[in-house]
Amino acid sequence: MKICILGAGNVASHLARAFCQANHDVVVWNRSESPLLAISEELQCRCTTDVRELPTDADAYIISVKDDAVRRVAELLSSTLSCTKPVVAHTAGSVSLEVLSGHFENAGVFYPLQTFSKDKSLNYSEVPFFVEGSGVVIKTLRDLAGTVSEHVYEMSSEQRKILHLASVFACNFTNHCYAISEKILSEISIPFNVMLPLIRETLDKVATMTPVKSQTGPAAREDYDVIESQMSLLEGNEVEQELYRLFSKNIITYKHND
Amino acid sequence: MKICILGAGNVASHLARAFCQANHDVVVWNRSESPLLAISEELQCRCTTDVRELPTDADAYIISVKDDAVRRVAELLSSTLSCTKPVVAHTAGSVSLEVLSGHFENAGVFYPLQTFSKDKSLNYSEVPFFVEGSGVVIKTLRDLAGTVSEHVYEMSSEQRKILHLASVFACNFTNHCYAISEKILSEISIPFNVMLPLIRETLDKVATMTPVKSQTGPAAREDYDVIESQMSLLEGNEVEQELYRLFSKNIITYKHND
Repeated sequence: MKICILGAGNVASHLARAFCQANHDVVVWNRSESPLLAISEELQCRCTTDVRELPTDADAYIISVKDDAVRRVAELLSSTLSCTKPVVAHTAGSVSLEVLSGHFENAGVFYPLQTFSKDKSLNYSEVPFFVEGSGVVIKTLRDLAGTVSEHVYEMSSEQRKILHLASVFACNFTNHCYAISEKILSEISIPFNVMLPLIRETLDKVATMTPVKSQTGPAAREDYDVIESQMSLLEGNEVEQELYRLFSKNIITYKHND
Repeated sequence: MKICILGAGNVASHLARAFCQANHDVVVWNRSESPLLAISEELQCRCTTDVRELPTDADAYIISVKDDAVRRVAELLSSTLSCTKPVVAHTAGSVSLEVLSGHFENAGVFYPLQTFSKDKSLNYSEVPFFVEGSGVVIKTLRDLAGTVSEHVYEMSSEQRKILHLASVFACNFTNHCYAISEKILSEISIPFNVMLPLIRETLDKVATMTPVKSQTGPAAREDYDVIESQMSLLEGNEVEQELYRLFSKNIITYKHND
Protein backbone atom coordinates (compact mmCIF):
# COMPACT_ATOMS: atom_id res chain seq x y z
CA MET A 1 0.00 0.00 0.00
CA LYS A 2 1.06 3.60 -0.46
CA ILE A 3 0.95 5.35 2.93
CA CYS A 4 1.60 8.98 3.85
CA ILE A 5 2.47 9.75 7.46
CA LEU A 6 2.04 13.32 8.69
CA GLY A 7 4.25 13.90 11.71
CA ALA A 8 7.68 12.71 12.82
CA GLY A 9 7.35 12.24 16.59
CA ASN A 10 7.58 9.00 18.55
CA VAL A 11 4.39 7.40 17.24
CA ALA A 12 4.94 8.61 13.65
CA SER A 13 8.52 7.30 13.58
CA HIS A 14 7.47 3.89 14.83
CA LEU A 15 4.59 3.68 12.36
CA ALA A 16 6.95 4.62 9.53
CA ARG A 17 9.29 1.82 10.60
CA ALA A 18 6.45 -0.68 11.01
CA PHE A 19 5.01 0.17 7.57
CA CYS A 20 8.44 -0.04 5.92
CA GLN A 21 9.01 -3.43 7.57
CA ALA A 22 5.69 -4.52 6.07
CA ASN A 23 6.99 -3.37 2.66
CA HIS A 24 4.57 -0.50 2.18
CA ASP A 25 5.53 2.52 0.13
CA VAL A 26 5.94 5.19 2.84
CA VAL A 27 6.21 8.97 2.54
CA VAL A 28 6.66 11.08 5.69
CA TRP A 29 5.79 14.76 5.97
CA ASN A 30 6.71 16.97 8.90
CA ARG A 31 6.63 20.73 9.40
CA SER A 32 10.22 20.93 10.57
CA GLU A 33 13.05 19.09 8.87
CA SER A 34 15.32 17.88 11.67
CA PRO A 35 13.27 14.87 12.90
CA LEU A 36 12.86 13.75 9.27
CA LEU A 37 16.61 13.31 8.82
CA ALA A 38 16.81 10.34 11.23
CA ILE A 39 13.76 8.72 9.64
CA SER A 40 15.00 9.06 6.08
CA GLU A 41 18.46 7.85 7.06
CA GLU A 42 17.14 4.78 8.88
CA LEU A 43 14.28 3.79 6.59
CA GLN A 44 15.43 5.21 3.26
CA CYS A 45 11.89 6.39 2.64
CA ARG A 46 10.84 9.69 1.09
CA CYS A 47 10.52 12.58 3.55
CA THR A 48 9.37 16.13 2.93
CA THR A 49 8.50 19.34 4.74
CA ASP A 50 6.27 20.49 1.87
CA VAL A 51 2.80 19.02 2.09
CA ARG A 52 2.30 19.71 -1.64
CA GLU A 53 4.95 17.10 -2.37
CA LEU A 54 2.87 14.31 -0.84
CA PRO A 55 1.47 11.86 -3.39
CA THR A 56 -2.21 12.45 -4.12
CA ASP A 57 -2.97 8.79 -4.73
CA ALA A 58 -1.99 7.28 -1.37
CA ASP A 59 -4.17 4.50 0.07
CA ALA A 60 -4.15 6.26 3.42
CA TYR A 61 -2.94 9.45 5.07
CA ILE A 62 -2.08 8.92 8.74
CA ILE A 63 -1.94 12.08 10.86
CA SER A 64 0.30 11.32 13.83
CA VAL A 65 0.95 14.58 15.66
CA LYS A 66 0.25 15.96 19.15
CA ASP A 67 -3.45 15.79 20.05
CA ASP A 68 -3.92 19.54 19.85
CA ALA A 69 -2.25 19.73 16.43
CA VAL A 70 -4.46 17.15 14.69
CA ARG A 71 -7.02 19.73 13.60
CA ARG A 72 -4.39 22.10 12.19
CA VAL A 73 -2.63 19.39 10.18
CA ALA A 74 -6.00 18.12 8.93
CA GLU A 75 -6.82 21.61 7.65
CA LEU A 76 -3.44 21.89 5.97
CA LEU A 77 -3.82 18.50 4.33
CA SER A 78 -7.39 19.12 3.14
CA SER A 79 -6.48 22.49 1.65
CA THR A 80 -3.59 20.99 -0.30
CA LEU A 81 -4.73 17.53 -1.31
CA SER A 82 -6.33 17.62 -4.74
CA CYS A 83 -7.51 14.02 -4.78
CA THR A 84 -11.12 13.32 -3.95
CA LYS A 85 -12.09 11.21 -0.97
CA PRO A 86 -8.70 10.28 0.49
CA VAL A 87 -8.69 7.95 3.50
CA VAL A 88 -7.37 10.12 6.34
CA ALA A 89 -6.93 8.84 9.90
CA HIS A 90 -5.33 10.14 13.08
CA THR A 91 -3.53 8.16 15.79
CA ALA A 92 -4.60 10.11 18.89
CA GLY A 93 -6.17 8.16 21.75
CA SER A 94 -8.23 11.02 23.11
CA VAL A 95 -9.22 12.84 19.90
CA SER A 96 -12.55 11.88 18.39
CA LEU A 97 -13.22 11.06 14.75
CA GLU A 98 -15.18 14.29 14.29
CA VAL A 99 -12.02 16.39 14.22
CA LEU A 100 -11.31 14.85 10.82
CA SER A 101 -14.79 14.20 9.47
CA GLY A 102 -15.45 17.90 8.92
CA HIS A 103 -12.58 17.94 6.44
CA PHE A 104 -12.64 14.49 4.93
CA GLU A 105 -15.49 12.28 3.84
CA ASN A 106 -13.37 9.18 4.49
CA ALA A 107 -12.11 9.96 7.96
CA GLY A 108 -10.89 7.36 10.45
CA VAL A 109 -8.83 6.59 13.51
CA PHE A 110 -5.77 4.36 13.63
CA TYR A 111 -4.78 4.04 17.28
CA PRO A 112 -1.91 1.79 18.40
CA LEU A 113 -2.08 0.99 22.13
CA GLN A 114 1.57 1.21 23.06
CA THR A 115 4.11 3.57 24.59
CA PHE A 116 6.60 4.59 21.95
CA SER A 117 10.13 5.81 22.63
CA LYS A 118 12.14 7.03 19.72
CA ASP A 119 15.20 4.82 20.05
CA LYS A 120 13.63 1.65 21.37
CA SER A 121 12.71 -1.09 18.93
CA LEU A 122 9.41 -2.92 19.29
CA ASN A 123 7.72 -6.10 18.16
CA TYR A 124 4.82 -4.49 16.29
CA SER A 125 2.97 -7.78 15.79
CA GLU A 126 2.02 -7.71 19.50
CA VAL A 127 0.77 -4.11 19.53
CA PRO A 128 -3.04 -3.89 19.61
CA PHE A 129 -4.44 -1.49 17.00
CA PHE A 130 -7.86 0.11 17.46
CA VAL A 131 -9.45 1.39 14.24
CA GLU A 132 -12.55 3.43 13.58
CA GLY A 133 -14.35 4.63 10.47
CA SER A 134 -17.07 3.56 8.09
CA GLY A 135 -17.17 1.65 4.81
CA VAL A 136 -13.98 1.95 2.78
CA VAL A 137 -12.16 3.58 5.71
CA ILE A 138 -12.51 0.73 8.15
CA LYS A 139 -11.56 -1.79 5.47
CA THR A 140 -8.41 0.17 4.53
CA LEU A 141 -7.37 0.74 8.15
CA ARG A 142 -8.08 -2.87 9.14
CA ASP A 143 -6.02 -4.10 6.18
CA LEU A 144 -3.18 -1.71 6.98
CA ALA A 145 -3.11 -2.58 10.70
CA GLY A 146 -3.32 -6.26 9.78
CA THR A 147 -0.05 -6.03 7.84
CA VAL A 148 1.68 -4.84 11.02
CA SER A 149 -0.08 -6.50 13.96
CA GLU A 150 -1.99 -9.65 14.84
CA HIS A 151 -4.31 -7.69 17.12
CA VAL A 152 -6.71 -5.33 15.32
CA TYR A 153 -9.98 -4.21 16.90
CA GLU A 154 -12.76 -1.87 15.83
CA MET A 155 -13.67 0.73 18.46
CA SER A 156 -15.78 3.90 18.61
CA SER A 157 -14.38 7.29 19.64
CA GLU A 158 -16.32 7.18 22.91
CA GLN A 159 -14.95 3.75 23.80
CA ARG A 160 -11.45 4.74 22.77
CA LYS A 161 -11.51 7.62 25.25
CA ILE A 162 -12.15 5.10 28.03
CA LEU A 163 -9.44 2.81 26.68
CA HIS A 164 -6.99 5.72 26.61
CA LEU A 165 -7.83 6.64 30.20
CA ALA A 166 -7.26 3.02 31.26
CA SER A 167 -3.89 3.05 29.50
CA VAL A 168 -2.86 6.23 31.34
CA PHE A 169 -3.31 4.37 34.64
CA ALA A 170 -1.68 1.14 33.41
CA CYS A 171 1.30 2.80 31.76
CA ASN A 172 1.88 6.48 32.54
CA PHE A 173 0.93 6.37 36.22
CA THR A 174 2.75 3.10 36.92
CA ASN A 175 5.81 4.69 35.34
CA HIS A 176 5.45 7.63 37.70
CA CYS A 177 5.25 5.18 40.62
CA TYR A 178 8.66 3.95 39.42
CA ALA A 179 9.87 7.57 39.35
CA ILE A 180 8.71 8.12 42.95
CA SER A 181 10.35 4.83 43.95
CA GLU A 182 13.60 5.94 42.33
CA LYS A 183 13.47 9.26 44.18
CA ILE A 184 12.89 7.50 47.53
CA LEU A 185 15.75 5.06 46.86
CA SER A 186 18.09 7.94 46.08
CA GLU A 187 17.80 8.94 49.76
CA ILE A 188 19.70 5.76 50.67
CA SER A 189 21.90 5.81 47.53
CA ILE A 190 20.39 2.62 46.13
CA PRO A 191 19.99 2.47 42.32
CA PHE A 192 16.49 1.87 40.95
CA ASN A 193 17.51 -1.29 39.10
CA VAL A 194 17.44 -3.20 42.42
CA MET A 195 13.64 -3.01 41.96
CA LEU A 196 13.59 -4.64 38.52
CA PRO A 197 13.05 -8.29 39.61
CA LEU A 198 10.21 -7.10 41.86
CA ILE A 199 8.45 -5.08 39.18
CA ARG A 200 8.96 -7.83 36.60
CA GLU A 201 7.27 -10.29 38.96
CA THR A 202 4.45 -7.80 39.61
CA LEU A 203 3.83 -7.75 35.87
CA ASP A 204 4.12 -11.54 35.48
CA LYS A 205 1.50 -11.93 38.17
CA VAL A 206 -1.12 -9.74 36.47
CA ALA A 207 -0.53 -11.70 33.27
CA THR A 208 -1.80 -14.83 35.06
CA MET A 209 -4.29 -13.52 37.63
CA THR A 210 -6.41 -10.38 38.02
CA PRO A 211 -4.74 -7.25 39.45
CA VAL A 212 -7.03 -7.32 42.51
CA LYS A 213 -6.15 -10.95 43.26
CA SER A 214 -2.43 -10.32 42.86
CA GLN A 215 -2.42 -7.28 45.18
CA THR A 216 0.11 -7.56 48.03
CA GLY A 217 1.64 -5.10 50.49
CA PRO A 218 0.69 -3.32 53.73
CA ALA A 219 -2.66 -2.01 52.45
CA ALA A 220 -3.72 -5.41 51.07
CA ARG A 221 -2.88 -6.89 54.49
CA GLU A 222 -4.65 -3.96 56.17
CA ASP A 223 -1.53 -3.52 58.25
CA TYR A 224 -2.29 -0.04 59.60
CA ASP A 225 0.91 0.16 61.69
CA VAL A 226 3.08 -0.12 58.59
CA ILE A 227 0.79 2.21 56.61
CA GLU A 228 1.12 4.87 59.32
CA SER A 229 4.86 4.42 59.66
CA GLN A 230 5.36 4.69 55.88
CA MET A 231 3.11 7.76 55.72
CA SER A 232 5.31 9.42 58.31
CA LEU A 233 8.45 8.64 56.27
CA LEU A 234 6.86 10.74 53.50
CA GLU A 235 6.45 13.77 55.79
CA GLY A 236 7.42 16.88 53.83
CA ASN A 237 6.54 15.29 50.47
CA GLU A 238 2.91 16.32 50.36
CA VAL A 239 1.91 14.89 46.99
CA GLU A 240 3.63 11.54 47.53
CA GLN A 241 2.10 11.31 51.00
CA GLU A 242 -1.38 12.00 49.69
CA LEU A 243 -0.86 9.47 46.87
CA TYR A 244 0.18 6.93 49.51
CA ARG A 245 -2.96 7.63 51.54
CA LEU A 246 -5.32 7.40 48.56
CA PHE A 247 -3.69 4.24 47.19
CA SER A 248 -3.90 2.49 50.55
CA LYS A 249 -7.53 3.50 51.00
CA ASN A 250 -8.46 2.37 47.50
CA ILE A 251 -6.58 -0.95 47.68
CA ILE A 252 -8.64 -1.80 50.77
CA THR A 253 -11.88 -0.69 49.05
CA TYR A 254 -11.18 -2.83 45.96
CA LYS A 255 -10.29 -5.81 48.14
CA HIS A 256 -13.59 -5.63 50.00
CA ASN A 257 -15.56 -5.19 46.75
CA ASP A 258 -13.87 -8.15 45.03
CA MET B 1 22.88 -25.75 56.79
CA LYS B 2 20.08 -26.64 59.20
CA ILE B 3 17.38 -23.97 58.95
CA CYS B 4 14.12 -23.54 60.88
CA ILE B 5 11.40 -21.42 59.34
CA LEU B 6 8.69 -20.04 61.61
CA GLY B 7 5.59 -19.25 59.56
CA ALA B 8 3.88 -20.78 56.54
CA GLY B 9 2.59 -17.78 54.56
CA ASN B 10 3.70 -16.62 51.11
CA VAL B 11 7.21 -15.55 52.06
CA ALA B 12 7.80 -18.51 54.39
CA SER B 13 6.66 -21.02 51.76
CA HIS B 14 8.93 -19.54 49.13
CA LEU B 15 11.90 -19.46 51.50
CA ALA B 16 11.25 -23.10 52.42
CA ARG B 17 11.27 -24.00 48.73
CA ALA B 18 14.39 -21.91 48.02
CA PHE B 19 16.26 -23.46 50.97
CA CYS B 20 15.23 -27.00 49.97
CA GLN B 21 16.39 -26.32 46.39
CA ALA B 22 19.73 -25.25 47.88
CA ASN B 23 19.86 -28.62 49.72
CA HIS B 24 19.55 -27.21 53.23
CA ASP B 25 17.96 -29.24 55.99
CA VAL B 26 14.66 -27.38 56.50
CA VAL B 27 12.11 -27.60 59.32
CA VAL B 28 8.95 -25.47 59.18
CA TRP B 29 6.86 -24.51 62.19
CA ASN B 30 3.46 -22.84 62.01
CA ARG B 31 0.77 -22.24 64.63
CA SER B 32 -1.98 -23.76 62.50
CA GLU B 33 -1.57 -27.00 60.60
CA SER B 34 -3.40 -26.48 57.30
CA PRO B 35 -0.81 -24.35 55.47
CA LEU B 36 1.89 -26.82 56.54
CA LEU B 37 0.26 -29.68 54.65
CA ALA B 38 0.97 -28.16 51.22
CA ILE B 39 4.57 -27.39 52.21
CA SER B 40 5.32 -30.84 53.57
CA GLU B 41 3.67 -32.47 50.56
CA GLU B 42 5.63 -30.40 48.03
CA LEU B 43 8.99 -30.22 49.74
CA GLN B 44 8.99 -33.42 51.82
CA CYS B 45 10.51 -31.45 54.68
CA ARG B 46 9.66 -31.74 58.37
CA CYS B 47 6.74 -29.56 59.48
CA THR B 48 5.33 -29.09 62.96
CA THR B 49 2.83 -27.02 64.90
CA ASP B 50 4.71 -27.59 68.17
CA VAL B 51 7.57 -25.19 68.62
CA ARG B 52 9.16 -27.58 71.14
CA GLU B 53 9.73 -30.01 68.29
CA LEU B 54 12.07 -27.63 66.47
CA PRO B 55 15.73 -28.71 66.52
CA THR B 56 17.79 -26.76 69.03
CA ASP B 57 20.96 -26.88 66.97
CA ALA B 58 19.82 -25.11 63.79
CA ASP B 59 22.23 -22.71 62.09
CA ALA B 60 19.45 -20.14 61.79
CA TYR B 61 15.84 -19.59 62.82
CA ILE B 62 13.96 -17.46 60.27
CA ILE B 63 10.76 -15.83 61.54
CA SER B 64 8.57 -15.16 58.52
CA VAL B 65 5.15 -14.09 59.75
CA LYS B 66 2.98 -10.97 59.47
CA ASP B 67 4.78 -7.83 60.66
CA ASP B 68 2.65 -7.49 63.77
CA ALA B 69 3.18 -11.13 64.75
CA VAL B 70 7.01 -11.07 64.69
CA ARG B 71 7.27 -10.05 68.34
CA ARG B 72 4.83 -12.74 69.53
CA VAL B 73 6.59 -15.53 67.64
CA ALA B 74 9.97 -14.27 68.87
CA GLU B 75 8.73 -14.52 72.47
CA LEU B 76 7.38 -18.00 71.86
CA LEU B 77 10.65 -19.13 70.31
CA SER B 78 12.84 -17.59 73.00
CA SER B 79 10.78 -19.16 75.80
CA THR B 80 11.07 -22.60 74.23
CA LEU B 81 14.51 -22.75 72.69
CA SER B 82 16.97 -24.21 75.12
CA CYS B 83 20.09 -23.63 73.02
CA THR B 84 22.23 -20.63 73.81
CA LYS B 85 22.78 -17.87 71.28
CA PRO B 86 20.77 -19.10 68.32
CA VAL B 87 20.89 -16.96 65.17
CA VAL B 88 17.34 -15.65 64.79
CA ALA B 89 16.24 -13.35 61.96
CA HIS B 90 12.94 -12.02 60.66
CA THR B 91 11.94 -11.29 57.05
CA ALA B 92 9.78 -8.18 57.52
CA GLY B 93 10.62 -5.09 55.47
CA SER B 94 9.25 -2.58 57.95
CA VAL B 95 10.12 -4.22 61.27
CA SER B 96 13.40 -3.17 62.84
CA LEU B 97 16.05 -5.46 64.26
CA GLU B 98 15.24 -4.32 67.82
CA VAL B 99 12.06 -6.40 67.93
CA LEU B 100 14.30 -9.47 68.06
CA SER B 101 17.37 -8.17 69.84
CA GLY B 102 15.55 -7.98 73.18
CA HIS B 103 15.03 -11.74 73.03
CA PHE B 104 18.12 -12.96 71.21
CA GLU B 105 21.74 -11.98 71.42
CA ASN B 106 22.28 -13.04 67.81
CA ALA B 107 19.38 -11.28 66.15
CA GLY B 108 19.24 -10.36 62.47
CA VAL B 109 17.10 -9.50 59.48
CA PHE B 110 16.79 -11.57 56.31
CA TYR B 111 14.69 -9.53 53.88
CA PRO B 112 14.01 -10.71 50.32
CA LEU B 113 12.87 -7.86 48.05
CA GLN B 114 10.20 -9.61 46.03
CA THR B 115 6.43 -10.06 45.85
CA PHE B 116 5.57 -13.63 46.68
CA SER B 117 2.43 -15.43 45.60
CA LYS B 118 1.83 -18.87 46.91
CA ASP B 119 1.39 -20.78 43.67
CA LYS B 120 3.78 -18.89 41.44
CA SER B 121 7.30 -20.21 41.01
CA LEU B 122 10.25 -17.84 41.03
CA ASN B 123 13.87 -17.70 40.01
CA TYR B 124 15.34 -17.08 43.45
CA SER B 125 18.83 -16.36 42.13
CA GLU B 126 17.57 -12.98 40.87
CA VAL B 127 15.87 -11.94 44.13
CA PRO B 128 17.88 -9.33 46.06
CA PHE B 129 18.32 -10.22 49.74
CA PHE B 130 19.01 -7.52 52.34
CA VAL B 131 20.59 -8.78 55.54
CA GLU B 132 21.32 -7.11 58.86
CA GLY B 133 23.04 -8.16 62.05
CA SER B 134 26.45 -8.17 63.67
CA GLY B 135 29.33 -10.62 63.86
CA VAL B 136 28.27 -14.23 63.55
CA VAL B 137 24.73 -13.20 62.52
CA ILE B 138 25.68 -11.29 59.40
CA LYS B 139 28.09 -14.04 58.34
CA THR B 140 25.43 -16.74 58.76
CA LEU B 141 22.73 -14.73 56.98
CA ARG B 142 25.07 -13.69 54.17
CA ASP B 143 26.12 -17.32 53.67
CA LEU B 144 22.52 -18.51 53.73
CA ALA B 145 21.29 -15.85 51.28
CA GLY B 146 24.30 -16.55 49.07
CA THR B 147 23.20 -20.17 48.62
CA VAL B 148 19.90 -18.91 47.18
CA SER B 149 20.61 -15.63 45.40
CA GLU B 150 23.38 -13.85 43.54
CA HIS B 151 22.33 -10.51 45.03
CA VAL B 152 22.98 -10.13 48.76
CA TYR B 153 23.35 -6.73 50.39
CA GLU B 154 23.90 -5.54 53.94
CA MET B 155 21.45 -2.86 55.06
CA SER B 156 20.47 -1.19 58.35
CA SER B 157 16.92 -1.20 59.72
CA GLU B 158 16.54 2.51 59.00
CA GLN B 159 17.62 2.12 55.38
CA ARG B 160 15.44 -0.96 54.94
CA LYS B 161 12.36 1.07 55.95
CA ILE B 162 13.11 3.45 53.07
CA LEU B 163 13.71 0.51 50.72
CA HIS B 164 10.41 -1.04 51.75
CA LEU B 165 8.56 2.23 51.13
CA ALA B 166 10.15 2.47 47.67
CA SER B 167 9.02 -1.08 46.92
CA VAL B 168 5.44 -0.27 47.92
CA PHE B 169 5.37 2.41 45.21
CA ALA B 170 7.18 0.26 42.62
CA CYS B 171 5.16 -2.88 43.22
CA ASN B 172 1.98 -2.52 45.30
CA PHE B 173 0.86 0.84 43.94
CA THR B 174 1.66 0.00 40.30
CA ASN B 175 -0.40 -3.15 40.78
CA HIS B 176 -3.28 -1.03 42.03
CA CYS B 177 -2.91 1.17 38.92
CA TYR B 178 -3.48 -2.07 36.96
CA ALA B 179 -6.56 -2.75 39.10
CA ILE B 180 -7.97 0.72 38.36
CA SER B 181 -7.17 0.22 34.67
CA GLU B 182 -9.02 -3.10 34.72
CA LYS B 183 -12.03 -1.49 36.37
CA ILE B 184 -12.11 1.31 33.76
CA LEU B 185 -11.81 -1.21 30.91
CA SER B 186 -14.70 -3.22 32.30
CA GLU B 187 -16.95 -0.25 31.44
CA ILE B 188 -16.36 -0.99 27.75
CA SER B 189 -16.15 -4.78 28.22
CA ILE B 190 -12.49 -4.96 27.24
CA PRO B 191 -10.35 -7.53 29.12
CA PHE B 192 -7.30 -6.24 30.99
CA ASN B 193 -4.89 -8.44 29.02
CA VAL B 194 -5.16 -6.01 26.08
CA MET B 195 -2.89 -3.80 28.23
CA LEU B 196 -0.13 -6.40 28.68
CA PRO B 197 2.10 -5.40 25.72
CA LEU B 198 1.86 -1.78 26.87
CA ILE B 199 2.79 -2.50 30.48
CA ARG B 200 5.57 -4.89 29.41
CA GLU B 201 7.04 -2.12 27.27
CA THR B 202 6.70 0.36 30.16
CA LEU B 203 8.81 -1.99 32.25
CA ASP B 204 11.35 -2.64 29.47
CA LYS B 205 11.83 1.09 29.16
CA VAL B 206 12.69 1.67 32.83
CA ALA B 207 15.17 -1.19 32.60
CA THR B 208 17.14 0.84 30.04
CA MET B 209 16.49 4.48 30.98
CA THR B 210 15.41 6.34 34.12
CA PRO B 211 11.67 6.43 34.98
CA VAL B 212 11.57 10.21 34.59
CA LYS B 213 13.14 10.03 31.12
CA SER B 214 10.77 7.28 30.00
CA GLN B 215 7.64 9.12 31.16
CA THR B 216 5.02 9.54 28.40
CA GLY B 217 1.32 10.46 28.35
CA PRO B 218 -0.86 13.58 28.59
CA ALA B 219 0.80 14.93 31.75
CA ALA B 220 4.33 14.45 30.38
CA ARG B 221 3.22 16.37 27.28
CA GLU B 222 1.47 18.93 29.51
CA ASP B 223 -1.60 18.41 27.36
CA TYR B 224 -4.12 20.08 29.67
CA ASP B 225 -7.08 19.50 27.32
CA VAL B 226 -6.66 15.72 27.54
CA ILE B 227 -5.98 15.90 31.29
CA GLU B 228 -9.22 17.82 31.83
CA SER B 229 -11.22 15.54 29.56
CA GLN B 230 -9.90 12.41 31.30
CA MET B 231 -10.58 13.95 34.73
CA SER B 232 -14.19 14.46 33.68
CA LEU B 233 -14.48 10.81 32.58
CA LEU B 234 -13.68 9.93 36.20
CA GLU B 235 -16.55 12.04 37.57
CA GLY B 236 -18.24 10.06 40.34
CA ASN B 237 -15.09 8.08 41.17
CA GLU B 238 -13.64 10.46 43.71
CA VAL B 239 -10.51 8.57 44.71
CA GLU B 240 -9.52 7.67 41.14
CA GLN B 241 -10.14 11.26 40.06
CA GLU B 242 -7.97 12.64 42.85
CA LEU B 243 -5.24 10.09 42.06
CA TYR B 244 -5.40 11.24 38.43
CA ARG B 245 -5.03 14.88 39.47
CA LEU B 246 -2.11 14.24 41.84
CA PHE B 247 -0.28 11.98 39.37
CA SER B 248 -0.60 14.54 36.58
CA LYS B 249 0.60 17.35 38.84
CA ASN B 250 3.56 15.32 40.10
CA ILE B 251 4.61 14.05 36.65
CA ILE B 252 4.89 17.69 35.54
CA THR B 253 6.83 18.62 38.71
CA TYR B 254 9.32 15.76 38.25
CA LYS B 255 9.77 16.64 34.58
CA HIS B 256 10.66 20.25 35.40
CA ASN B 257 13.03 19.18 38.21
CA ASP B 258 14.86 16.65 36.02
